[in-house]
Amino acid sequence: MNNNNVNNNLQPKLWSGRFSKPTHPSVEEYTASIRFDRELVYEDILGSLAHAAMLEHCGIIGAEENNRLQHGLKQLAKKIAAGEIEFKTADEDIHMNIERLLSVEIGDLAGKLHTARSRNDQVALDMHLYLRKNIIIIVELLITLQNTLLQLAEKHKGVILPGYTHLQRAQPIYLVQYVYAYIAMLQRDVERLQDNWPRVNRSPLGAGALAGTTFPIDRNYTADLLGFENIYFNTLDAVSDRDFIVEFLAAGSIIMLHISRLSEELILWSSQEFNFISFDDAFCTGSSIMPQKKNPDVVELARGKTGRVYGALFSVLTLLKGLPLAYNKDLQEDKEPLFDVVKTLRQTLEIFNPLLATLTINSDAMRLAVNKGYLNATALAEYLVKKSLTFRAAHEVVGKMVARCIQKQCCLEELSLEEMREYTSFITEDVYSILIVENIVSACNKNLQIECMHYQQQLKFNQQWITEKKQLITAVINKFELAFND
Amino acid sequence: MNNNNVNNNLQPKLWSGRFSKPTHPSVEEYTASIRFDRELVYEDILGSLAHAAMLEHCGIIGAEENNRLQHGLKQLAKKIAAGEIEFKTADEDIHMNIERLLSVEIGDLAGKLHTARSRNDQVALDMHLYLRKNIIIIVELLITLQNTLLQLAEKHKGVILPGYTHLQRAQPIYLVQYVYAYIAMLQRDVERLQDNWPRVNRSPLGAGALAGTTFPIDRNYTADLLGFENIYFNTLDAVSDRDFIVEFLAAGSIIMLHISRLSEELILWSSQEFNFISFDDAFCTGSSIMPQKKNPDVVELARGKTGRVYGALFSVLTLLKGLPLAYNKDLQEDKEPLFDVVKTLRQTLEIFNPLLATLTINSDAMRLAVNKGYLNATALAEYLVKKSLTFRAAHEVVGKMVARCIQKQCCLEELSLEEMREYTSFITEDVYSILIVENIVSACNKNLQIECMHYQQQLKFNQQWITEKKQLITAVINKFELAFND
Amino acid sequence: MNNNNVNNNLQPKLWSGRFSKPTHPSVEEYTASIRFDRELVYEDILGSLAHAAMLEHCGIIGAEENNRLQHGLKQLAKKIAAGEIEFKTADEDIHMNIERLLSVEIGDLAGKLHTARSRNDQVALDMHLYLRKNIIIIVELLITLQNTLLQLAEKHKGVILPGYTHLQRAQPIYLVQYVYAYIAMLQRDVERLQDNWPRVNRSPLGAGALAGTTFPIDRNYTADLLGFENIYFNTLDAVSDRDFIVEFLAAGSIIMLHISRLSEELILWSSQEFNFISFDDAFCTGSSIMPQKKNPDVVELARGKTGRVYGALFSVLTLLKGLPLAYNKDLQEDKEPLFDVVKTLRQTLEIFNPLLATLTINSDAMRLAVNKGYLNATALAEYLVKKSLTFRAAHEVVGKMVARCIQKQCCLEELSLEEMREYTSFITEDVYSILIVENIVSACNKNLQIECMHYQQQLKFNQQWITEKKQLITAVINKFELAFND
Amino acid sequence: MNNNNVNNNLQPKLWSGRFSKPTHPSVEEYTASIRFDRELVYEDILGSLAHAAMLEHCGIIGAEENNRLQHGLKQLAKKIAAGEIEFKTADEDIHMNIERLLSVEIGDLAGKLHTARSRNDQVALDMHLYLRKNIIIIVELLITLQNTLLQLAEKHKGVILPGYTHLQRAQPIYLVQYVYAYIAMLQRDVERLQDNWPRVNRSPLGAGALAGTTFPIDRNYTADLLGFENIYFNTLDAVSDRDFIVEFLAAGSIIMLHISRLSEELILWSSQEFNFISFDDAFCTGSSIMPQKKNPDVVELARGKTGRVYGALFSVLTLLKGLPLAYNKDLQEDKEPLFDVVKTLRQTLEIFNPLLATLTINSDAMRLAVNKGYLNATALAEYLVKKSLTFRAAHEVVGKMVARCIQKQCCLEELSLEEMREYTSFITEDVYSILIVENIVSACNKNLQIECMHYQQQLKFNQQWITEKKQLITAVINKFELAFND
Repeated sequence: MNNNNVNNNLQPKLWSGRFSKPTHPSVEEYTASIRFDRELVYEDILGSLAHAAMLEHCGIIGAEENNRLQHGLKQLAKKIAAGEIEFKTADEDIHMNIERLLSVEIGDLAGKLHTARSRNDQVALDMHLYLRKNIIIIVELLITLQNTLLQLAEKHKGVILPGYTHLQRAQPIYLVQYVYAYIAMLQRDVERLQDNWPRVNRSPLGAGALAGTTFPIDRNYTADLLGFENIYFNTLDAVSDRDFIVEFLAAGSIIMLHISRLSEELILWSSQEFNFISFDDAFCTGSSIMPQKKNPDVVELARGKTGRVYGALFSVLTLLKGLPLAYNKDLQEDKEPLFDVVKTLRQTLEIFNPLLATLTINSDAMRLAVNKGYLNATALAEYLVKKSLTFRAAHEVVGKMVARCIQKQCCLEELSLEEMREYTSFITEDVYSILIVENIVSACNKNLQIECMHYQQQLKFNQQWITEKKQLITAVINKFELAFND
Repeated sequence: MNNNNVNNNLQPKLWSGRFSKPTHPSVEEYTASIRFDRELVYEDILGSLAHAAMLEHCGIIGAEENNRLQHGLKQLAKKIAAGEIEFKTADEDIHMNIERLLSVEIGDLAGKLHTARSRNDQVALDMHLYLRKNIIIIVELLITLQNTLLQLAEKHKGVILPGYTHLQRAQPIYLVQYVYAYIAMLQRDVERLQDNWPRVNRSPLGAGALAGTTFPIDRNYTADLLGFENIYFNTLDAVSDRDFIVEFLAAGSIIMLHISRLSEELILWSSQEFNFISFDDAFCTGSSIMPQKKNPDVVELARGKTGRVYGALFSVLTLLKGLPLAYNKDLQEDKEPLFDVVKTLRQTLEIFNPLLATLTINSDAMRLAVNKGYLNATALAEYLVKKSLTFRAAHEVVGKMVARCIQKQCCLEELSLEEMREYTSFITEDVYSILIVENIVSACNKNLQIECMHYQQQLKFNQQWITEKKQLITAVINKFELAFND
Repeated sequence: MNNNNVNNNLQPKLWSGRFSKPTHPSVEEYTASIRFDRELVYEDILGSLAHAAMLEHCGIIGAEENNRLQHGLKQLAKKIAAGEIEFKTADEDIHMNIERLLSVEIGDLAGKLHTARSRNDQVALDMHLYLRKNIIIIVELLITLQNTLLQLAEKHKGVILPGYTHLQRAQPIYLVQYVYAYIAMLQRDVERLQDNWPRVNRSPLGAGALAGTTFPIDRNYTADLLGFENIYFNTLDAVSDRDFIVEFLAAGSIIMLHISRLSEELILWSSQEFNFISFDDAFCTGSSIMPQKKNPDVVELARGKTGRVYGALFSVLTLLKGLPLAYNKDLQEDKEPLFDVVKTLRQTLEIFNPLLATLTINSDAMRLAVNKGYLNATALAEYLVKKSLTFRAAHEVVGKMVARCIQKQCCLEELSLEEMREYTSFITEDVYSILIVENIVSACNKNLQIECMHYQQQLKFNQQWITEKKQLITAVINKFELAFND
Repeated sequence: MNNNNVNNNLQPKLWSGRFSKPTHPSVEEYTASIRFDRELVYEDILGSLAHAAMLEHCGIIGAEENNRLQHGLKQLAKKIAAGEIEFKTADEDIHMNIERLLSVEIGDLAGKLHTARSRNDQVALDMHLYLRKNIIIIVELLITLQNTLLQLAEKHKGVILPGYTHLQRAQPIYLVQYVYAYIAMLQRDVERLQDNWPRVNRSPLGAGALAGTTFPIDRNYTADLLGFENIYFNTLDAVSDRDFIVEFLAAGSIIMLHISRLSEELILWSSQEFNFISFDDAFCTGSSIMPQKKNPDVVELARGKTGRVYGALFSVLTLLKGLPLAYNKDLQEDKEPLFDVVKTLRQTLEIFNPLLATLTINSDAMRLAVNKGYLNATALAEYLVKKSLTFRAAHEVVGKMVARCIQKQCCLEELSLEEMREYTSFITEDVYSILIVENIVSACNKNLQIECMHYQQQLKFNQQWITEKKQLITAVINKFELAFND
């Protein structure tokens, strides 16, 4: 192989042996992935370091050769980190770019790195490494958000607001209850990513193009070196599987679904009509034409970005539909949606943290809203049941009392005992204590302290999981004496 | 409450206390869910049995009352199973229908059943029970399919066919490898449903409309009775959460994605061009106009149904986007997509079993195809590497040899040693043994037996999981002396 | 063909000539479409009537034969309308069912009906006829809704409310403006369906299975008979094209998108916080547990059904992706999503009409809301620009005045002239008239009357279009002396 | 307003009058759109030129002021084209960037440009201008592709291949028929974009933030200047409408759907099994591991990109669902999906042109394939019908004959007359001429010439449409003496 590196664009492709014509220039532009798969640069180098080490371990290359490959790859990593390297579209993708750049560093020996490896298992490897890293980061952001919410709840203990169904005031609740609902949602988000993990942290390396290799490789060796807990047994599956990405995108879609629900409510609550909260000025923007405006841009945008993440999920589901085994070029289209979702999740979760921490809670406005809307009607019905009506009968009685109050424009507790007893003689003086909102929420929430401890416990487990996984990855990085920053 | 049951349509709604006008007739038609949520009838009765038992346990109703409720509900269950019951649109949904029907059985006492319960937690409960049951059924179907594939592989051990990438013949593989790829995919499908399980098998009962209840209920008591491994701590979350459904739909989408890939290949392979397989006549249909046609309708339809399942996932993701807490009527739209996906998965997985079991493998055609397409080129390159070329150099040499063969219209092994040595003097007589396809696949597949044992092991675990979960559910059914069939 | 019609289930399939085995029973269940394509029964008969007439016209069958076919088909249509006919799963689809039933009516001659026709072009024909009919119905419902909105606007002329951006009060607007926005959206919905029309009202009949026929048929003859304005020139395209369905589903998705926006606002406006509108009791439902609740179920459900329609669009897009020409069984999956979307659109548009017509507008609450939120700030900035500040400078000045007002908890118009002039000396006494909301909306809406006339004009055109298309269809129905009701 | 332009990052936001705190740095990063909306730079300047001209025309600014604004904007356009300008994230979006940059050019007068305008109508305007331009480009690419296909058909007139249904050989067809099917699909794609046009080429300018303005502007004046054929009458609609984008994305999805079908077939046809076509080397790529591989990467990637475009459609549909009027920040998320789809369509359509033009058709392989698969069976059945069997009876007879041939491994035409007559005595010597494939396709395609002329006619109309629209846009560009390149 006659390799001078003066002008890559004039060099033949690394696979061009059987071709009689160069690639059409717009094909290069159309099919090259280096524009976006450069995101995988550290994963690619890491994978190559492990692969070279395995080649030596199995006697496929010599120790000296491995040393030069290791050194060359690390040199390259440093130059890339220093911004000294430019990738080339003519080299198609990150794998070919790295190999070509390596050959500049260490000469023709670079050509040995691709022994017993194909771009098909290589790119699968990179994607597994990339997603593994980002799951850790995203789980950590989720935990941080759970912590922020726990503090928010703690800070506003005792604040009562209307709970809504159908966006109609329904029953009084503690703000704490509301906040806990989102902690519980985020907990499921954490769990889903933890469920995703074993299918992400599995090594496809060694599967070759689809059918393995005639070289006496050791797939478990690279898997161990790279901190994988498992390998893909089946080689066709290893190169064609993108389940782990779809799963992640689905989990990400549910995260954004939760964020969209929270955002919707923050938008509602910060409207002049609700006025339950105020955003810190630092998290709002103004209008170019209306001087009085203070807009909740961040949460609106987060809500909008739900579409982006759903879209990415469907994009990948679509491209995988009906694809025959094993590798097809269509699979290249898995990258941009994944990278975009990772970025969207990271940015969104990151910004919600200070945004929620700086939220002003207008507890007076919340409490005032509780007074209107007959939020104690259910408690009254339950009182009547305790006095021996069936629930259905009690429901009907209270329904009629509410209708009267609406007409009179008063609260239930403003009806006199006589008025109340027109509807049923079961009502006695003790009814008024039952109608006090503070009594209702307190009766409904006997286990709030237990719930809180439950979340604290979960958070501890989550934190522990993160710590373990981070150690695993750090150990790998250290093993290869690399100094990557994400 | 004055309840005569002669004509339900003239009866007031159970919630009509505060309303001054009856519902518009087309509203009833538009909002009633009984047309489809009747699917939940056994779940609804089961949930009510447990709820009534808890009400007694907590002293909210008397033992005698509970006995009558239990008896009435079981009577109703029998009548429904016997097809003696007609549901009414005027009663909106399955919950109201059951309550009204129960009042026919046991009179006004039926009105006590809704004590300390709302339709919001009730419907969530039904959905959890429904999905729990169906996950077991679907996992079992997946396992059956894995078994069928294992047998198929066993039966055709040694059969060699071209492995494809880019739908171009790439390298020779065993049919076994191909079949194992799908076993591995189905294994992940099983795992995803197992991961879904703890979030499905969690009780929302007792959350009330959104805020719990002032009654001294015991949520763990009903959860235990119903075989739930956990409860929703947070009441707002309990009634508004549909994550468990989205998760299932995502897992179902991936199942169909696998089915679509398999179907695509079965369609290709049964074409006259490939001719790798033949479907049993029992799994094909003919043409109304072309007498010679034998069409692979079943697998085509399965491939098409992928769209249906993806669509259901997107439908539910869309409806949940931006919904404020807690319950909103939009959530009613979660049912039809879920029911449809469950049905689609069950039918599709069920039919693939006999379809695959009766497949004819045309191993001669497969072997013939291996001969064309230079599938031993990679092995040749690897041979050259072993002779000390870099892989890149070897790749280039073999690429040129292939180009020559294409021109000469011959195989690599048909080149004479002299011809070969024109490209590189590293080639010696031993090259011809390297080029034999049987040798290649054997060299690439040293661990096939281990892989097989691995799947057998997984299948045993899967089977064990199923057995446990089925016992759990059977125990619940037996506890209440019910005789449901699915 | 030995045809006794005693028991269809024992009869061989109409295409079974070359098959040596009957269909597997679960295949029948899986692949049969009669469960849902019975929806096409009238379209199928209509198409057959035209096809038979053409066969006679071209001398392919005799006049007497055609007469008997016509008579038999019409008899069948009557029996079906009378509910006297039961379809059979064993006969797979509506086409085979009709043919078999026809053979009961008129004997073996029924077998001639399928001359020069395939189920592939037949089902395409049915779908074109079905969608054509439903587009007319849906456009008419859209126009009705536009009319209702026009009347609503007329009735509440002069009502002023806050216009919102970012759900923050922004500038005062007339309710009329708001209502007109939705008329404009619905107008585009009408236009999109009108654009869809020429691609729907095009005849695929005569394309056969994919390649036409050796019979000397006249495709334009059937097209004319059936009121088609065009034919598919290309036969492969005719049987494989589903663009017209995707287009419709996309148009339907945008309709539901508009409905979801309107629903969202009606939900917001009917909340206790906004209190801008009240729904008629006939369009709300209550809670099973909370006696005071009045829930906007209809609009919530409509909003939720957006997901259903989006899902259907995605479902069909997915199934069509990557399908080779010409007909594939996957295409059968186009039906249920289409039928469901048609039903959803018809029901939803239908119910919005009385719902909007009976809406109570709380104009006092709207007007009150205008007073808070500094909605006249933009007008003040524009005043300053007229006094020669740049808009940017004016924006900044007014921004600072608003900040002061927020601190003082007063309106802009409550600042004294002195206070105002602290910010800029350009402000003079005339500023107070500028700040009056009624003056602002009147200045901003000089062309409201023209806008109204514009919509009235469009509505007239829409109505005319509907009338023409209905005549076209009625003429076809009459030509064949059929009495279908939809 | 104290404006020094040394360091934009320290400058206050243009809307910061009422804010007491600067924006949080990560908010800036999260909400700024300049990273992608810079794509709209020429549209933004063009809109501003027209707006300034209108302000003068209506007496809102002076002639001298307008001249300076015009000159400043054109200067800026030149600098941007020359690459001399850097946009700043701190300036959020393209609108604010341009305004700030303009103030560097011409000082505080730049602040007058935003008179009677909001970013809400400004960004809507930019999107309309952007999409208008790109629709023209895409329609032109579609027409080019239609032309290439017409030439391909012309070149291979007479080539016969099997037509497929269910991927089974069905009936013989001309390659021309197949190619025409795609011309017809592309024609509908052209039509859909033409239908989209009037809703794209409509001016929102003058709608302000949502409610118009108190300035005496002339909305038709800017619309005329900018070549718009219409304006948005309703101001709320003007700023909140994104229908025109969804429509385009839906049309784009159908384009990609067609491309995916074509790609699928090209992939199939270039497989070793079909071998119907060969791609030019310039449009294939090789394998990094398998030296013999020649992969149809371009068409695979195109098929994969279908997912990307579908995803973008659903992304925008999702974000619009349930958004209240008028502008919400969520709408910012409409840009990236649109830009990405435009780019994908342009690149894909562009590359298909040379790819199809350089395709090698292996007509021998096609003709050979026609011989197997009993493709003349339908013609035989039709022959029997002409001899007076019902089609059903003929179908059954031929079915049985085919079954026999399969057993004998022969063609229908290889049966002797005696053998044939065992099935029905209607068969006579003339049957053999009927069975000749050339005769069949010729009989089925009497109107192919008319079909061809039909497409040529349509292409002429398409070309004319393009010419008109291009003139319209060129006239606008020239009017403002701009020299943009796309």
